[in-house]
Amino acid sequence: MITFYDTKGLPNPDRIRIAFKEKGVFDQIKVVQVNLWEGEHRTEGFRKINPNATVPLIVLKDGTAISESTAITEYIDHQFEGVNLTGRSAEQRAVIHMMQRRGEQKIVDAIGAYFHHATIGFGPEVEGKQNKEWGQLHYEKTLQGMRYFNDVLKSNKYIAGDIFSMADITVFTGLNFSETFPKVMIPKDCNALLEWRNRMFERPSCIDSKEQMNLV
Amino acid sequence: MITFYDTKGLPNPDRIRIAFKEKGVFDQIKVVQVNLWEGEHRTEGFRKINPNATVPLIVLKDGTAISESTAITEYIDHQFEGVNLTGRSAEQRAVIHMMQRRGEQKIVDAIGAYFHHATIGFGPEVEGKQNKEWGQLHYEKTLQGMRYFNDVLKSNKYIAGDIFSMADITVFTGLNFSETFPKVMIPKDCNALLEWRNRMFERPSCIDSKEQMNLV
Repeated sequence: MITFYDTKGLPNPDRIRIAFKEKGVFDQIKVVQVNLWEGEHRTEGFRKINPNATVPLIVLKDGTAISESTAITEYIDHQFEGVNLTGRSAEQRAVIHMMQRRGEQKIVDAIGAYFHHATIGFGPEVEGKQNKEWGQLHYEKTLQGMRYFNDVLKSNKYIAGDIFSMADITVFTGLNFSETFPKVMIPKDCNALLEWRNRMFERPSCIDSKEQMNLV
Repeated sequence: MITFYDTKGLPNPDRIRIAFKEKGVFDQIKVVQVNLWEGEHRTEGFRKINPNATVPLIVLKDGTAISESTAITEYIDHQFEGVNLTGRSAEQRAVIHMMQRRGEQKIVDAIGAYFHHATIGFGPEVEGKQNKEWGQLHYEKTLQGMRYFNDVLKSNKYIAGDIFSMADITVFTGLNFSETFPKVMIPKDCNALLEWRNRMFERPSCIDSKEQMNLV
């Protein structure tokens, strides 16, 4: 059985939870919650499993530990049948990986830098030394990222084109985190982005997301 | 014909040049050099091709533009025969993507943050506002990254295990940039890392790297 080290509400673990659910295999996975707010990822016990001290992490039957969300998504997509998350042809794979990386840079990593450096983040004991100027810069970058994906969605049904992919999951989880914790909201005039997000909320894999965001 | 927008000596474009060469197709590619030191990536002409203003970039026959090095590598690996760069089984793909992402974070991105924020970088006109504290932090992170991969290579022949992959290319190009421009050198006691790098220098795809680094 695969063990999934998860922290609900954080974008990168959310990516993995949704990927498992898209494949319809989430109930076959052992889930262990890791409390990042209490620094549980930095304990000796967790570092033995992941020396990098990050979630998400999956541990395979043979004991192999995989961290890094894109790597875990590659595993899930190639291991299980069902909806394709990473693309099939060389060109489709390239476009999906490109847009998913932009989703990380422009939304997930940008709002993460703001959260960790310019807000209280996980609190002083977990955050350590902050760089406020770096954090504040990423408030602007997050808003630019939202406008960028709004523009993308004016002509695309999904983030990487006509079909749903891991790029949608990345942007979706980043936006949800942004609105829930550091409270950087999608600008009200980003109609294409908001319309796409409403479609995402309706996916069975994403049905818990509104609850997580206290929207229900 | 594929057009490859390249800047020699920078780690991310170097990754793509080496990937094409590993597949034995570099002479079938049209290469356009972009002078980042003169801010050529920020010109209106280049932004029309890549609004994100980054290299590397490839433009396919049908006009599709692909940026982001991992995405381009996925394209190259799935489009051309030859040495496998991104893995075959789900587990192999996951381990390679994980180690390649660590290569980005711990070497390429870390030394990039130091270069752009704590050294002259591409010069004041291209760099704009720097964050010295952020840059300096990444000097330490780069050295930690070198020690991390040295440890990995004590028990692995290559960065992601027994076989060569894109993860090797990422770490290799990041280290070469580090030693050439910001002059952050691999610590002399990192024997496993240095031995691996010597093997990398001998690969036909990497033969130009020493010349680029003015080592010949």
